Amino acid sequence: MTTRTEASLPAQLARMERALQARRTRFVLKDEHVTLSHGSGGKATHNLLEGLLLPAFGNAFLDLQDDAAILAPNGGRGRVAFTTDSYVVSPLFFPGGDIGKLAVHGTVNDLAMAGAEPLYLSVGLILEEGLEMAVLRQVVDSMTAAVAEAGVQIVTGDTKVVPRGKADRMFINTSGVGVVRDWIHLSQRNVVPGDRVLVSGNVGDHGMAVMLAREALELEAEILSDTAPLHMLTAALLAAAPGTRCLKDPTRGGVATSLNEIAQQAGVGVSVDEERIPVRPEVRAACEILGIDPLHIANEGKLLAVVPPEQAGAALAALRAHPLGRDAALIGEIIAEPEGMVVLRTGVGGARVLDMLVGDPLPRIC
Amino acid sequence: MTTRTEASLPAQLARMERALQARRTRFVLKDEHVTLSHGSGGKATHNLLEGLLLPAFGNAFLDLQDDAAILAPNGGRGRVAFTTDSYVVSPLFFPGGDIGKLAVHGTVNDLAMAGAEPLYLSVGLILEEGLEMAVLRQVVDSMTAAVAEAGVQIVTGDTKVVPRGKADRMFINTSGVGVVRDWIHLSQRNVVPGDRVLVSGNVGDHGMAVMLAREALELEAEILSDTAPLHMLTAALLAAAPGTRCLKDPTRGGVATSLNEIAQQAGVGVSVDEERIPVRPEVRAACEILGIDPLHIANEGKLLAVVPPEQAGAALAALRAHPLGRDAALIGEIIAEPEGMVVLRTGVGGARVLDMLVGDPLPRIC
Repeated sequence: MTTRTEASLPAQLARMERALQARRTRFVLKDEHVTLSHGSGGKATHNLLEGLLLPAFGNAFLDLQDDAAILAPNGGRGRVAFTTDSYVVSPLFFPGGDIGKLAVHGTVNDLAMAGAEPLYLSVGLILEEGLEMAVLRQVVDSMTAAVAEAGVQIVTGDTKVVPRGKADRMFINTSGVGVVRDWIHLSQRNVVPGDRVLVSGNVGDHGMAVMLAREALELEAEILSDTAPLHMLTAALLAAAPGTRCLKDPTRGGVATSLNEIAQQAGVGVSVDEERIPVRPEVRAACEILGIDPLHIANEGKLLAVVPPEQAGAALAALRAHPLGRDAALIGEIIAEPEGMVVLRTGVGGARVLDMLVGDPLPRIC
Repeated sequence: MTTRTEASLPAQLARMERALQARRTRFVLKDEHVTLSHGSGGKATHNLLEGLLLPAFGNAFLDLQDDAAILAPNGGRGRVAFTTDSYVVSPLFFPGGDIGKLAVHGTVNDLAMAGAEPLYLSVGLILEEGLEMAVLRQVVDSMTAAVAEAGVQIVTGDTKVVPRGKADRMFINTSGVGVVRDWIHLSQRNVVPGDRVLVSGNVGDHGMAVMLAREALELEAEILSDTAPLHMLTAALLAAAPGTRCLKDPTRGGVATSLNEIAQQAGVGVSVDEERIPVRPEVRAACEILGIDPLHIANEGKLLAVVPPEQAGAALAALRAHPLGRDAALIGEIIAEPEGMVVLRTGVGGARVLDMLVGDPLPRIC
C-alpha cells in the first residue's frame, strides 16, 4: 500500500545508516549506577538502551525500536506482533484508572501502534508480601473488565511474591501478541519529509492525574487519566489513511520524546506548532504550577500518527469521527533538516528545539 | 500421532468435568493478605490461582494450566506458543548461574514443555534506583550468552526504574513465543492410567544452590544450579516418543508439585518410586540438614515426561543419549486411583501421599 519502499530504498538505507552512526557516536553509557531517569522514557532511558541493551541484545527486530516487534514465526505465513511492558505506577489507583487497567491498555496500545489487531496477553504479577488481597482482587477485576472491553484474552500468567520491603505493593508485566494484516507496514523509519503529524487528542492528562493523586494535590477541576485501548481508533485510522507511515503512543517522556524518537529513527526533522497541540486548560495550569512541559508528560490513551500529506485530511477526519479521537489535531510536519531534531514553533513566531525528556520529574507514572 | 483423543473423548471430558468440579469446591481464597507462600508455586499459589485469578481471567487457554498457551492467531495457520515468567531470585548470582541466565532458560523451557520450538523472547527489566551499572551489565551479558546458546532472539523490551527501597536490585520478566509443529499436542490432560513417568536427571540442584548461596552456607561439595535450556532435549524426546502425553519442568514447588498438578489436571493418580528418583548425595545431605524434601525443591534444567508405556523405553533412551538427560530415570506410572493424588512408594515397601509444597521454605528461588 505504501509505495515509497521501492522508490527510495537507497535513500532509506543511507538514512538508516546515518541514524545508526549518529547513535553509535552519541550514546556512551557513563553512569555507574541506575537512576530514576533511566526509567523516565527520556534521554537517560535512550542512553541505557543505546549504550548497553541494544549493543548486547541487538538484532534486526530490536534495532527498529518500534513499540512492538513484527515476527513471522511460521516462515512468513501470517505476521505476529509481540510486545512487553512492566507497570510500576504509584499510587496503584488514580483518577480515571489503576495499575490493572493501565497494564491492559498499555500493551494493547503497543500492539495497536504496530498496526496489529491485539489478541492475547500474558500477565506476570510481582507482589509484595502483605499486600491486601482486597487490593489484588480490585486490580484483577479491573484487568478483567479491561480485557473484556478491549476484546483480548489473558492466556498465560505467572505470580511471584517477594518479602515485605522488597517491592512496592505490586508490579505487573503484560506482554501481548497480535496479528498484522498483510498490507500494513508501519515503522518510524518509513517517515519522510513532507509527511504530516497528527495527535489524537489532549495531551498530558495521564501523567498529571497520577502526579496529583500521588502528591495529594487538590485542583479545582479534577484531571482524569486518559487510559484507553486505542486499537479500534487505529483500525479506523488505517482504513481511512492506508499510507500511514507510523503510529506511536506518547507514554513515558510524552509527545516531545516520541517526536524525537521519530526524528532520530527516520533521520528527519519534525516541525510542530505549539498552539495546535491540544492541552486541557486544567492540565496546562497544573503544568505551570509544577514547572513541567505538558509535552513531556505521559499519555495512555493518545496516539501520534505520521501520514503522507495527501491522506492527512482523511486521517484527521477518521480520528475525529471516533470518540477517542474527537479532539484530534494536525500539529506539524516532517522536514528534511535539522536531521534528528524536533523544532517547536511558538505562538509569537519564534521557534525552539524541543528535546526529549531529561531527568525524571514524574517517576513511576506507568 | 496420539490416538486417544478420538478413543476416549467422553471419558476425557468426564474427567475434565470432575477435575473442574473438584477445583471449584476445593479452592476458596480465605487469605486477607498476600504471603510468601502465594509465590512458592505450591498449594498457596494454586489457591490464589483457583480462588482469584482463574475465575477472573479464566478462558479455554488459561484453564488448561499448561506451561504455555497454544494459540492460532492466524485462524489456524501455524500454531504459536506464548508464555511468561518473572524472575526475582535472590541473590542475583549463584553457583551455576544468575538471574539473567535463569530468565532466558526458564522461558525457553516453558515453551519447550509445550512442545514448541522457542524463537523470540521479550525482556522487561524492573530496576532499583542505585543498582550498580556493572551488575546490570553482567546480567545483560549473561542473557546475551544464554539467548545465543539457545538460538533465540530478544525482540522487544521495556525498562522501568523504581526508587531505592521499592524493589530489590532487579527483577526480570521474560515472555516467549515459539512455534508448535502440527503433529504435537501436549497437555497434562492427555495423561491416562498406564502411562509412565520419566525424569530427565538429578532433582533439587537449582533450589539448593540458590539456598546455600543466599545463606552463605558452606558444604564440602559445591552444588551448582542445573539451569539449562531444554528445547533440544525435548525435540529429541518427542522424535523418539511421539506419543508423549505431556512435559513439565519441575521449577517452583519441585517434582512433587508438578506431579500433583498432573494428577489434578488429568484426574488420575500418580505412583512414583522414591528410590528411583535421582538425587545427588550432596543435595540429599543438604536437604537432611535443612529439613527439606528434595522433591519440593526447584529445578531449572530438568523435565518430567509422561509417555505411553510402549514408548517409555524409547523415551528413556532418547533422554539418556543427550548430555542434559544422561541421568534420566523411569520413576513411576499413572494410575486410576486415588484420583488427583500422588503416591510415593518408599524403600521399605511402604507408601505415602506426596503433597504439593505447602508454605515456602525457599522463597525467591527463581
